[in-house]
Amino acid sequence: MLVKTQVKYIQSLSQKKLRDEEGVFVAEGPKIIEELLAAGNTDLVQLYAENSWIQQQAFLPQNAVQTVTAAELQRISSLHTPNQVLGIFRKPVFPTGLVLRNKISLMLDTVQDPGNLGTIVRCADWFGISTVICSRESADVFNPKVVQSTMAGIARVRVLYEDLASFLQNHADIPVYAATLNGTPLPKLGAVKEGILLIGNESKGISEELLQMATQKVTIPKIGQAESLNAAVATGIILSHIV
Amino acid sequence: MLVKTQVKYIQSLSQKKLRDEEGVFVAEGPKIIEELLAAGNTDLVQLYAENSWIQQQAFLPQNAVQTVTAAELQRISSLHTPNQVLGIFRKPVFPTGLVLRNKISLMLDTVQDPGNLGTIVRCADWFGISTVICSRESADVFNPKVVQSTMAGIARVRVLYEDLASFLQNHADIPVYAATLNGTPLPKLGAVKEGILLIGNESKGISEELLQMATQKVTIPKIGQAESLNAAVATGIILSHIV
Repeated sequence: MLVKTQVKYIQSLSQKKLRDEEGVFVAEGPKIIEELLAAGNTDLVQLYAENSWIQQQAFLPQNAVQTVTAAELQRISSLHTPNQVLGIFRKPVFPTGLVLRNKISLMLDTVQDPGNLGTIVRCADWFGISTVICSRESADVFNPKVVQSTMAGIARVRVLYEDLASFLQNHADIPVYAATLNGTPLPKLGAVKEGILLIGNESKGISEELLQMATQKVTIPKIGQAESLNAAVATGIILSHIV
Repeated sequence: MLVKTQVKYIQSLSQKKLRDEEGVFVAEGPKIIEELLAAGNTDLVQLYAENSWIQQQAFLPQNAVQTVTAAELQRISSLHTPNQVLGIFRKPVFPTGLVLRNKISLMLDTVQDPGNLGTIVRCADWFGISTVICSRESADVFNPKVVQSTMAGIARVRVLYEDLASFLQNHADIPVYAATLNGTPLPKLGAVKEGILLIGNESKGISEELLQMATQKVTIPKIGQAESLNAAVATGIILSHIV
């Protein structure tokens, strides 16, 4: 049975401040939990699971699993429809040292919608992008909504929060490709071996300061009349062409 | 001042049944409202706007605009942060007769997340896709969340709800490209002049029955470890390569 302090603690992890203090995050649902357990670099702190799910698992760390009822899961879940299991994990640990050479990395100038950020991380995971550098004003990647939309990509993709202008100054030897509405048409860019793909805010785009630091602007050719594309869709399209 | 019956009526339009009976939908925020007013094929029924927004408009149909306070807008808005103006519009009217020849159309086998559906319509709008055929179990394109994520694409892209298997039987001369995880790699497909791009459900993919009717399966090459891509991102990537 869940005690009140447990419920309060789990609910408190919806706040960034508490997640940061504890160094943990929450994930929900069989698919993402099973992938996180398999990923290896995110230590499990505690699972709260319905018996039906527990019965289906071949291996589980017994000392970190608590059986809960559907009603109890409802109390601790942040989902509209809680899904069998909720887990608290330590934030993933990545090898020290940041490698930007001979690969493509992503930089996000203030992507604020949690669903967009999560979908971008999932997309990075698909295309083998290992590093996403976010401005400090971006959504927190350990926000439960972001975690859910990454589909466990959060365990494989390293997400950093930096002052982007300083970061680019410190890595001035790496080319920066900025996604804009008035750049080189994407098909003309061709494959890219090394660089940072810079994606802007959902409504404001990329800040003038960062645009000035870009090596090249790149644009997805438009055929119809939409004013812009969703940030995650644009990221996916550009990655699919340059990777 | 808004009267109680107005508030109730606007709130009731969050339900599909009521929207269908009335033949209207709700959109919010200056950007989408201004685009809808400009699009022309969605007649305005009524605008509820804060004075600050009204002052900025050069032209407005005076008989269909009611000034509201921020507090009143809050009562009728479905957004967390209401944004100056809410409009009720008649559903868009498109020319009769469906053209699938010499163009690419989209077919969605039960995309259920409103944000995904809206983002797909926005993406169709960007790539000049004029028709999206949804299974009857898909999210309703006039759901307020969908409307918001289409970014006014709803006025330019025709969205139909059909029995997909019958539809494909009735249009057996149009090639069908199914997005799957085990098809022809996308770069090998090349440009497509005519066809229906078939996208599956967020977790179940494309139904077996529809897969059997596909002319060709197509796959976005994977480099990393993600199990799948978000449905809207996958749609955008495939469209960007074949259009």
